[in-house]
Amino acid sequence: MPRDQGSTVGELGESGVLQRVLAQLRPAMAATLGPGDDCAVMRLQGELVVTSDTMVEGPDFRRAWHSGFELGWKLAATNLSDVAAMGARPIGLTVSLAVPRDTPVTLLEDIAAGLTAACEAMAPGCGVVGGDLGTAPVITAAVTALGDMEGHSPVTRSGAQPGDQLAYAGDLGLAGLGLSLLFAHAIEEDGSAHGRSLAALWERHPEVLAAQLAPTPPIPLGVIAGGSATAMMDVSDSLSVDAERLAQASGVAIRLDSRLLADAFGMQEAVSVPIAAMLAGGEDHGLLATFPDGATLPEGFHPIGYVIEQAVGDVLLHLDEQPYESRGWDPYTIQLPGLVAG
Amino acid sequence: MPRDQGSTVGELGESGVLQRVLAQLRPAMAATLGPGDDCAVMRLQGELVVTSDTMVEGPDFRRAWHSGFELGWKLAATNLSDVAAMGARPIGLTVSLAVPRDTPVTLLEDIAAGLTAACEAMAPGCGVVGGDLGTAPVITAAVTALGDMEGHSPVTRSGAQPGDQLAYAGDLGLAGLGLSLLFAHAIEEDGSAHGRSLAALWERHPEVLAAQLAPTPPIPLGVIAGGSATAMMDVSDSLSVDAERLAQASGVAIRLDSRLLADAFGMQEAVSVPIAAMLAGGEDHGLLATFPDGATLPEGFHPIGYVIEQAVGDVLLHLDEQPYESRGWDPYTIQLPGLVAG
Repeated sequence: MPRDQGSTVGELGESGVLQRVLAQLRPAMAATLGPGDDCAVMRLQGELVVTSDTMVEGPDFRRAWHSGFELGWKLAATNLSDVAAMGARPIGLTVSLAVPRDTPVTLLEDIAAGLTAACEAMAPGCGVVGGDLGTAPVITAAVTALGDMEGHSPVTRSGAQPGDQLAYAGDLGLAGLGLSLLFAHAIEEDGSAHGRSLAALWERHPEVLAAQLAPTPPIPLGVIAGGSATAMMDVSDSLSVDAERLAQASGVAIRLDSRLLADAFGMQEAVSVPIAAMLAGGEDHGLLATFPDGATLPEGFHPIGYVIEQAVGDVLLHLDEQPYESRGWDPYTIQLPGLVAG
Repeated sequence: MPRDQGSTVGELGESGVLQRVLAQLRPAMAATLGPGDDCAVMRLQGELVVTSDTMVEGPDFRRAWHSGFELGWKLAATNLSDVAAMGARPIGLTVSLAVPRDTPVTLLEDIAAGLTAACEAMAPGCGVVGGDLGTAPVITAAVTALGDMEGHSPVTRSGAQPGDQLAYAGDLGLAGLGLSLLFAHAIEEDGSAHGRSLAALWERHPEVLAAQLAPTPPIPLGVIAGGSATAMMDVSDSLSVDAERLAQASGVAIRLDSRLLADAFGMQEAVSVPIAAMLAGGEDHGLLATFPDGATLPEGFHPIGYVIEQAVGDVLLHLDEQPYESRGWDPYTIQLPGLVAG
């Protein structure tokens, strides 16, 4: 059936929009009842893990930069990484989309297609099991991701021990470089985003744009690392901010090693990445984990530092021999150009 | 500790806001790990049921009418009712709040307090297990509710059989009357909401305002009805719209009986409710269920009609002997005064 490019959600109405969106979804293996009833029903092997995250047009993404497909992909990736960070297998997503009435129905279909493709690529068997549709002044996508511990114990942020190795798996700093690139080359003088230079940016910097707009964190490594990690979390706000959170939760301090960081992540997919971008970039959604001293790291994890005793004076984070002040994303205080005024 | 009335979320920053919000929450009994890690972890006895719903300031609620506490209460109630409608016991909520930066922190605390109070009143043992905070041009609250089937089979919309009794539990039409009252007496000429007459409305019409602003659906009846209902759903858009959906899903038709409706719901908590309000009101979030012919209805359920064979011509809904055209809420096509233009 040809897609009717002209229809907006306001013209089509809820049930018509829902039908078009549902056609882009694939069943989740663990779902015994999928979308369409009051709830989805899922069968688990072990404990449930659950996480929620919302992306709002303006503060969290720009329509001029993100295609609907990329937005759907990123929504899945950022939530799946939280499930992986517990050592769990992702089994389902719920997605609430609230959009202006003049939004083309095709955008919602593309978001659904991106969610589906991301699940197939990063978490086979996982899929969208439910959600709802509504209206909002800007596109607002709220995702909840569900995972199954399958009889294993969850890996929290609080289990790191002095002497542990600190390791990271996934892209590091690329997503932040991608955001910098977009702010440097795809912003009008009034701060609004534009897409005029997007094709050229994609041609010259595909790795960093992909890392920002449609990231592919190493979701399957979560279950694998769960077998030996003492602590694990996904890096969403930045390596330095999240490493400090892990240290805080575990009652330890962390020493990042700039030489190890440079060795493992100085050159990623033909992109030269400075240490500063690795430390403060944010939105990488890779896995930061600690492993016992001497343990062999799971393939995909690279050593980047050490866990040490919490020193007097509560300095939780060090880079080499020096205290390091963490920096990264805070939704309420960060000032980006072009954001809707609070 | 005295509440600092002056702080906005933009002044306090994410971790400060989070701390204040978390202080209003109570642990969920089934949670083996609560908020603060990448995911919450929950232990279930049976299959998981999961549902998501988002409320956006403007289309879904007005700040001039809803206190933060009432908003939190309604967020919990509207999601818990979907869990109850499967015959499940609610075990946890995740809540994503995105708000403008100039939002007082006290509003978020009040929302959290309302969520907690609603769980304690309607679903003891259930609580907020996770979520996230972000920014948006208007207040946006996305809730996911989780329930445990505890070894029982879920009750879907699709099991109604010709000959079954149709029954309903909860308020019916009161929430719609409350919304009409607010639109009649608490709207400026330009369509925006005001709160000047709210105290007087609460004094004169407490039942209908409570039903609209902080509803109390019969959540515990979900598990009880699950033992004998052939089909069940919560009534969110209106009795007529949702009865038609149940008929559609079950491949049957439904005959509502105006005499039974008037007998059971014509007078609710000293409020006289016309049949039209029962049929088209919406937002009641009570339980609509079908039970085998002759079965004793669980206490709290009232007979309101019958399930019949689907007639030629696909008329799914009848009121007494006549076909009845369903009407209720559609977020994309409904025109309410004062809504933000799409």
